[in-house]
Amino acid sequence: MGIVVQKFGGSSVADAERLLKVCKHIIKEHNEGNNVAVVVSAQGKTTDKLISEEREITKNPNKREHDTLVSVGEQITISKLAMTLEELGYKAISLTGWQVPIVTTNEHGNAKIKYINNEKILDLFNKGYIVIIAGFQGVSEELDITTFGRGGSDTTAVAVAASLKADKCEIFTDVDGVFSSDPRIVKNVKKIDNICYDEMLELSSMGAKVLHNRCVEIGKKYNLPIIVKSTFEESSRGTIVDNNYMENITISGVTKDTNVARITVMGLENKIGRTYNVFKLLADNNINVDVIVQSFGENVNKNLSFSIKTSDLESAVKLLNDNIENIGAREIRYFDNLSKISIIGIGIANKTGVAADMFEALYENDINMHLISTSEIKISVLVDREESDRAVRAIHQKFFNN
Amino acid sequence: MGIVVQKFGGSSVADAERLLKVCKHIIKEHNEGNNVAVVVSAQGKTTDKLISEEREITKNPNKREHDTLVSVGEQITISKLAMTLEELGYKAISLTGWQVPIVTTNEHGNAKIKYINNEKILDLFNKGYIVIIAGFQGVSEELDITTFGRGGSDTTAVAVAASLKADKCEIFTDVDGVFSSDPRIVKNVKKIDNICYDEMLELSSMGAKVLHNRCVEIGKKYNLPIIVKSTFEESSRGTIVDNNYMENITISGVTKDTNVARITVMGLENKIGRTYNVFKLLADNNINVDVIVQSFGENVNKNLSFSIKTSDLESAVKLLNDNIENIGAREIRYFDNLSKISIIGIGIANKTGVAADMFEALYENDINMHLISTSEIKISVLVDREESDRAVRAIHQKFFNN
Repeated sequence: MGIVVQKFGGSSVADAERLLKVCKHIIKEHNEGNNVAVVVSAQGKTTDKLISEEREITKNPNKREHDTLVSVGEQITISKLAMTLEELGYKAISLTGWQVPIVTTNEHGNAKIKYINNEKILDLFNKGYIVIIAGFQGVSEELDITTFGRGGSDTTAVAVAASLKADKCEIFTDVDGVFSSDPRIVKNVKKIDNICYDEMLELSSMGAKVLHNRCVEIGKKYNLPIIVKSTFEESSRGTIVDNNYMENITISGVTKDTNVARITVMGLENKIGRTYNVFKLLADNNINVDVIVQSFGENVNKNLSFSIKTSDLESAVKLLNDNIENIGAREIRYFDNLSKISIIGIGIANKTGVAADMFEALYENDINMHLISTSEIKISVLVDREESDRAVRAIHQKFFNN
Repeated sequence: MGIVVQKFGGSSVADAERLLKVCKHIIKEHNEGNNVAVVVSAQGKTTDKLISEEREITKNPNKREHDTLVSVGEQITISKLAMTLEELGYKAISLTGWQVPIVTTNEHGNAKIKYINNEKILDLFNKGYIVIIAGFQGVSEELDITTFGRGGSDTTAVAVAASLKADKCEIFTDVDGVFSSDPRIVKNVKKIDNICYDEMLELSSMGAKVLHNRCVEIGKKYNLPIIVKSTFEESSRGTIVDNNYMENITISGVTKDTNVARITVMGLENKIGRTYNVFKLLADNNINVDVIVQSFGENVNKNLSFSIKTSDLESAVKLLNDNIENIGAREIRYFDNLSKISIIGIGIANKTGVAADMFEALYENDINMHLISTSEIKISVLVDREESDRAVRAIHQKFFNN
């Protein structure tokens, strides 16, 4: 008898009618003889509504109370889904985060899972129940309710699946899987059938909104197959995230991230430790630096360029200017008109010609590259933001012929 | 340092503005140097809304899931109220039923409190917190969420107060206390300043909607003063429910219950055990019988009349007719056009003249009495339902001169 974990997001469980559709997927696995655990998010706009009511009270809510408040969203969904399954004649039971329990750190709003006690779930499986678990929430060792932040329900699902040594974890969503690019930019995006964890991690962090990094990391750690598929398309086979990828190199996707700004520290003294000082200052103030390019030359001074998130730009520029003498620079320049375009694929860095193909696509379309960085599975370039959609289309055309 | 428990109902906590008003009462007790525990209900129509959503799924919800669903109402209120107090600069913390914990039987929808572990509350008091507790809910020993049914938040408040050996338990409501009759019937109702537990129990069960019986019973058992007062009238002194009543007899109130039907079992054989058989049959089918009158006579047969709730009438009549041969009766008659009018007051039964005054008021107004029953602190009569408001006014006039 296999164990399957399924996760349904907020729009998949938005109302009574959709809950019925969700039940079809659950019952299918149940009737195939599997033990099924189901993880759900809050219905539709429930969480947004609670947060807007909270704002009427305070702009700066106590974090523990905030978690107690927003966690009711998933509690509503689990009880409704269990009732729906019972109404259809199946034995189902709901568990909140603390009932499982999913034990977390006490970092309210961004709690990390310490461990999951799976005894209760296994006991309920033995009694023939379909077990419905609230996503996004856990309980600290002090018995406070905690929540996980963005992508939290995916994280619950994969963590529960890992804890149960499930055969698979299915993440149901609005779309049919993970795509080779953003369908709002590229017309004929290609659904990815298989992708490995590392590629998925790059896709997630590059702005493909399908799976949250935390859940992919857990899947990778426990080598748990994660399947992303559509709630509403019956025939959806989705995208399988696992480590059974082919040996030969494939480009999985082309991504765009517009939340990119560039800072150039001009006239930095050419002394040992100067570069380190700049990045230490930024790190001490929780500003993450992404792509870095340093000009080398014969000169006494050098220029240091790097990209950061647009949202960090203002504080970073102020920080550098406040410390300009200390870091030994002449001037801080910045640009907030860039996007980062990346291609993701296993072994990219080892294959000659992939980078050349990417750059050729941009060259053929007269698109200038500002900064370039590469990793084992990714090549990124910064381009002018106004050119970014054209850049994505040109590169996608190059690798996918559409 | 004293301990005070305050309870605020659904309309008192309906929105952000009202939560601020509620805080005034809490802060007043806190600033007087008391440890304050606050029990709250779900906001306004929250529970009704959840139940109507539930009905879209099923007419017959699983009771455990129903409790998990509706318990979110109070969880929303506790977190919002704690945030509101924090926003005002006070240390406050919320506790759900399971976080306290309030441990109950597992009768979902009508759970009884087994015990309250007050360690956490006392620890939080020691750390200077105002403690906000979800009403209406607890947790079974199997860690399932349970709820208490009607009047559940009052019960939580009085039980928490008893467990903490609080100096008082204040039940805040829309009105200024407990009144001598229903203001919709009698113009010049009198607010009761002091009332004892037994009288309050009779008033509650007679349809005065202020306090639920369960909470009055707990108050009586632990001799805990309960104060019913208005959330919105600052000067409200309310009604004190305790055992410090005066020795002399006072009529506390006049009540009306329209949920009354009468059944007459005609031609019952005059044999030992016949009456018992009728009531055993009803009791076995969970039908409560209230006032009973049996005609005695020289005849072979007798008639047995009794009152029951209107809501039980249909099933009771069917039950009796189905078993008419077995119980040895000729015919079952029933009337669903009665109301029960009661006067409540300590020592009524021992004081000559009280019953006479009541009957005189009815006689003077040409109101016919169908059945009469008396107890230590109550005299009830059944009258035609269409006469019932007139009856209440006549009796109230007699005893309160208005």
